[in-house]
Amino acid sequence: MSTQAAHPSLLIPGPIEITDEVAQSMSYYAQSHVGQPFVNVFGETLTLLRDLFQTKNPGSQPFVIAGSGTLGWDLVAANLVEPGEDVLVLHSGYFADSFADCLSTYGAKPTQLKAPIGDRPQLPEIEAALKAKKYKAVTVTHVDTSTGVLSHIQPLADLIRKVSPDTLLVVDGVCSVGAEELHFDNMAIDVALTASQKAIGCPPGLSIMMVSEKAMNVFKSRKSPPGSYYASFKNWVPIMQNYEAKKPSYFATPPTQLVQALNTALKQLLSQPIAARVAQHQKISKYVKSEIMKMGLKQLPIDPANAANTMTAIYLPEGLTPPEILPKLMAQGVVFAGGLHKEIAARYIRFGHMGVTAMDESRGEIDKALNALKSGLAEIEKAKN
Amino acid sequence: MSTQAAHPSLLIPGPIEITDEVAQSMSYYAQSHVGQPFVNVFGETLTLLRDLFQTKNPGSQPFVIAGSGTLGWDLVAANLVEPGEDVLVLHSGYFADSFADCLSTYGAKPTQLKAPIGDRPQLPEIEAALKAKKYKAVTVTHVDTSTGVLSHIQPLADLIRKVSPDTLLVVDGVCSVGAEELHFDNMAIDVALTASQKAIGCPPGLSIMMVSEKAMNVFKSRKSPPGSYYASFKNWVPIMQNYEAKKPSYFATPPTQLVQALNTALKQLLSQPIAARVAQHQKISKYVKSEIMKMGLKQLPIDPANAANTMTAIYLPEGLTPPEILPKLMAQGVVFAGGLHKEIAARYIRFGHMGVTAMDESRGEIDKALNALKSGLAEIEKAKN
Repeated sequence: MSTQAAHPSLLIPGPIEITDEVAQSMSYYAQSHVGQPFVNVFGETLTLLRDLFQTKNPGSQPFVIAGSGTLGWDLVAANLVEPGEDVLVLHSGYFADSFADCLSTYGAKPTQLKAPIGDRPQLPEIEAALKAKKYKAVTVTHVDTSTGVLSHIQPLADLIRKVSPDTLLVVDGVCSVGAEELHFDNMAIDVALTASQKAIGCPPGLSIMMVSEKAMNVFKSRKSPPGSYYASFKNWVPIMQNYEAKKPSYFATPPTQLVQALNTALKQLLSQPIAARVAQHQKISKYVKSEIMKMGLKQLPIDPANAANTMTAIYLPEGLTPPEILPKLMAQGVVFAGGLHKEIAARYIRFGHMGVTAMDESRGEIDKALNALKSGLAEIEKAKN
Repeated sequence: MSTQAAHPSLLIPGPIEITDEVAQSMSYYAQSHVGQPFVNVFGETLTLLRDLFQTKNPGSQPFVIAGSGTLGWDLVAANLVEPGEDVLVLHSGYFADSFADCLSTYGAKPTQLKAPIGDRPQLPEIEAALKAKKYKAVTVTHVDTSTGVLSHIQPLADLIRKVSPDTLLVVDGVCSVGAEELHFDNMAIDVALTASQKAIGCPPGLSIMMVSEKAMNVFKSRKSPPGSYYASFKNWVPIMQNYEAKKPSYFATPPTQLVQALNTALKQLLSQPIAARVAQHQKISKYVKSEIMKMGLKQLPIDPANAANTMTAIYLPEGLTPPEILPKLMAQGVVFAGGLHKEIAARYIRFGHMGVTAMDESRGEIDKALNALKSGLAEIEKAKN
């Protein structure tokens, strides 16, 4: 029996649909945040994140903190970069602008490398930028939720290691972790940050991050204190290490129910190899994108090789706007998202296909969504004629 | 039928027991954070906070942000105080030290006015401090969860208005809002910050705050930009105002299920007058404290008039430590908290009696806890002889 009431299918690029088991964990009874039963669950959750991010280096440091995904940027900007230091921000949509804003807040000097909407900066220009100036870090949005653009991490990591090996590689994996190819150790990633409500399949409210041993050493050797209190590694690292060692510890009260839900979501996620999960997301994405193409609709990423597997950003037919089509979808029990990239927001919609929606085909949500889009467009077309 | 599994009674000073309705709201199905159904619920929740804090001034600004209660300090320190400005921190326990730490992080200069453990700074010394230097703000911990000390807001507010009317009055109401006397307008409070998991009766994960029109104007006239990104009023104020106007808006994804649970908790809380709720907490507190006294145990607050109504901090008999008594309580299905104030942590325990535990006497949790404490102590005494 489902624990969730009947509801429209949430097919936006996060929050996503949750399983009944995750929903049930959300209503876990009140627990002491320093009592052993909860301490054990939180500790296990932190260890499970090592498997999710695919890191075997015991020096890698996981974080789970109450907050939105956005908090991950503060964690990076306030702890791993010092005032006056340069950061190269690879721009593939809305989220690079915001990350740059966050970096500036804490005194860093972000330089954005931009690309046309639906594209991403290319390796030769990144190489030139890295050779022109010493950057403390490079940030990249793995999947930019505003454009559906996928950035490939391995070649970027290879380039940084070759040209500027001290530079930290920071991956904003909010819309990718748990669904796109991301191997923390093999790709020599320094920071991978994400949120609970995307491909991990937990409700929103948790900022989740993995930090490499190298980046932790950079933090330890910083000259100025962290620029934030709530987002300070100084405050959180002992807490995370104590919890993972199954010892109670207090800085701020963790969201006990959300941690229970994350624990459940991670166990479901890790019940099969991550590679199989990534492959399934790729398969579903390919299917969605080919069906969208058959409908005669254009997609945002200019080069299909740059398209995310977790979502599809779809241009509407000329003259049609999201407020016209989204209610037609809703009438059929399908929730898509409107546009987010300011310059083109009125011209496109976004379809998230990750987590349980992609993994459990028996739910039928993918075809339900495609059919709703097809018939919604046909209805509008018919009304015009 | 209860939606919650059988579990020990959580009687710590937060998180607290939640009602079945709140637990059920936590497992709400996934919703779009910018879809009208959720926007309406979030908007209504913000408006309900005006009733909770008792403010009728439309210029008062409510905030609900994913985070622990601690985040409220960053919101104050990064937005309402500028680098180099002085803040008077009234110390009644652990939490003043942390708030001062947070203020320093963002460049403010905190001056702590301390008192012996179990006491709080007195009005004459506060008056002298306010006359000696110009303070941008005074912070006070309404109930210090580490000591159970209650600070009285009205006389402090009167003093500030008389001696230093420009100074902002910031009340850390984490362990008080929803149970102690706090009238935002009548007391001319500028900031009241709290968390979801204390007397409000929602699970942890939300930083909740009300800011006065005067303080909002102080923010608008600041010369330097806010010191935080995630805790920036600049980023959040438009979002809160849009949601309250039932318009979708995006800065960071709100924790949709926690907001549903807060909405339910607030409706339950506001189903009766706040004065009646405060009176019931006072009645339960008086009963608990007199029963503890009958057991021959001392309490932390030196003057009973300084004792919180939401919790009781209890000194253990000479030689007995929390790790000896807490498992005895747990064996009887009662969870108390150990000590938190570093200097005396090994000598006392804390009993939270707020929210549904205090309001719904039919739950029988208060007497269950008192009996467990009594028999636990007797058992230890017996084993010694």
